[in-house]
Amino acid sequence: MSKKIAVIVAGSWGTALSRVLADNGHRVMLWTRKQAQADEINRERSNDKFLPGVKLPEGISATSDMAEAMAGAEAVLFVAPSSAMREVARQAAKVLQKDALVIHATKGYESDSLKRMSVVLSEELGRPESSIVVLSGPSHAEEVVQQHPTTIVVAAKDVSCAEAAQDLFMNHSYFRVYTNPDMVGVETAGAIKNIIALGAGLSDGLGFGDNAKAALITRGLAEIARLGDAIGANPLTFAGLAGVGDLIGTCTSQHSRNWRAGSMLAQGIPLPEVLERMGMVVEGVRTTKAAYVLARQHGVEMPITDQLYAVLFEGLSPDKAVGALMGRVRTHEIEEVATELTSKRANRSI
Amino acid sequence: MSKKIAVIVAGSWGTALSRVLADNGHRVMLWTRKQAQADEINRERSNDKFLPGVKLPEGISATSDMAEAMAGAEAVLFVAPSSAMREVARQAAKVLQKDALVIHATKGYESDSLKRMSVVLSEELGRPESSIVVLSGPSHAEEVVQQHPTTIVVAAKDVSCAEAAQDLFMNHSYFRVYTNPDMVGVETAGAIKNIIALGAGLSDGLGFGDNAKAALITRGLAEIARLGDAIGANPLTFAGLAGVGDLIGTCTSQHSRNWRAGSMLAQGIPLPEVLERMGMVVEGVRTTKAAYVLARQHGVEMPITDQLYAVLFEGLSPDKAVGALMGRVRTHEIEEVATELTSKRANRSI
Repeated sequence: MSKKIAVIVAGSWGTALSRVLADNGHRVMLWTRKQAQADEINRERSNDKFLPGVKLPEGISATSDMAEAMAGAEAVLFVAPSSAMREVARQAAKVLQKDALVIHATKGYESDSLKRMSVVLSEELGRPESSIVVLSGPSHAEEVVQQHPTTIVVAAKDVSCAEAAQDLFMNHSYFRVYTNPDMVGVETAGAIKNIIALGAGLSDGLGFGDNAKAALITRGLAEIARLGDAIGANPLTFAGLAGVGDLIGTCTSQHSRNWRAGSMLAQGIPLPEVLERMGMVVEGVRTTKAAYVLARQHGVEMPITDQLYAVLFEGLSPDKAVGALMGRVRTHEIEEVATELTSKRANRSI
Repeated sequence: MSKKIAVIVAGSWGTALSRVLADNGHRVMLWTRKQAQADEINRERSNDKFLPGVKLPEGISATSDMAEAMAGAEAVLFVAPSSAMREVARQAAKVLQKDALVIHATKGYESDSLKRMSVVLSEELGRPESSIVVLSGPSHAEEVVQQHPTTIVVAAKDVSCAEAAQDLFMNHSYFRVYTNPDMVGVETAGAIKNIIALGAGLSDGLGFGDNAKAALITRGLAEIARLGDAIGANPLTFAGLAGVGDLIGTCTSQHSRNWRAGSMLAQGIPLPEVLERMGMVVEGVRTTKAAYVLARQHGVEMPITDQLYAVLFEGLSPDKAVGALMGRVRTHEIEEVATELTSKRANRSI
């Protein structure tokens, strides 16, 4: 059944997900701060800064008026950058329908509070965290708008909310959606993988090769799972689409902004210039800062995060960072991977 | 301390590993069936069919005489194709020193018996299986000979044998070696990942994109781990270098022969022509046949293997196979990944 759905904001991922919803027969209202961008979407059927060359279907409209976006919306998808999430949620809260389903697809933490996005939304919208859904998985926007086959996960503690989101997004010809009750694991995996992607970009930019990158991604997965274990995630999530799937998709594709930012850093381009050249948010940079602090709060070893932090914020040269990562692991592999997967939590969650 | 080490045979991986050993100060005798290839290695310091453009160090000699290769060898590294392993091992057995360390780096099963390579070596060499070492992990030969940073695993039930192999191969500037006691898991992961790489090549060849490939690799990891669980492997191995690491390295690199074979199949080139164009062994083709039978023997679901089997041996079109793979998974993700990681074995092995 066709529903009205609000999508906030009109970046590349928000626009690509709007296309999936429109392809499924829903009426999408994309909200953007900029009236000129709303006009472009409405008149030209394009969003050229974020998805150049893509023609948007008629089912998508745009507005810069939050009340108009929310009016009659049965579901709201938040895809704002992590740094803007609280502010747009606060605006939306005033006009959000009481029973609208709330979904988000943003990968990162709030900067100072280090809160996950579902916590920020829960606080600002006055909803229980269990009712909020996160959408994640290996999904480059550029491919989704081309209707290339894509599989993703929707997670919520309240399974009925996840299933409602699954119904909205499932498209049997190109967009498959799986449910998972582990909100904490899915959000953690989605955020931290951007750090590993920065590291993979560094490694590739330095010409270290596919062997080195595969090792880095393997250790990145262990690092994500260690943090996840410390904060109550289900270890199985990291073996799935939102875990290893998204990690692979992000670290081995040139579509990834975080990978591209890492590869520019490897060429000696300073961080402010990298961010300017990207022209879009590079979540991994902020997430590195957040994870660096979280690792210390929870007493978790996160060597890739530590090296990236030193490169981004302390002037460490990329080749020294990658060299340090290649050098430091233990000699017995099982000790290295055992931490996260043999925890007692792994057994409890069966 | 410099040792004499025999390496059988002089394909690309055998030659690349010989280079690591020679860089570590060992004297390597490469055995090859073809006298002309031995002459090329000895006179030209090259092995152009397998590693074009690479200059081999002085520490490597070659011979087509098995007795000469084995004379005084304190360790023997078998890197023959799986189809030739039993026969070369039988030849070697007659002249092998009684206390020589036996290592292999071949990824596949014996065709009819479906035996792992360590079992074949154990039978032919009259050694306990526990003393045999397997070397595996994300390691394209082309990068190793360029001394790009590479990390691998050596596994043996007898830890002292694995550690002896670690001592031979460890190179602190570019080749890091970890030990793992799980021979069954390391051999299983190394063999099956070539099937997934064929599938990844099919998907890429069909233009399905990075989102689809990431999903395929994620499901491939689950498939490998399910088979491993059924035959007594340690689930942790699949989260490490020989598991997810090698899988990523093989599925996302154009160095991989199996990936290339898959991408040619996707272009509609028939299997015999693909194999002829490759000019080197494509282990994934034979392994698909072996795993197809093993899955049935052990009652394990291996959907990627099944689809590849149908493409390779039953004339199924690649786009139908990949379409079937994208379509069939369950809608609750945790059910999908739970099978292998929540087994009782995972707990026992802590």
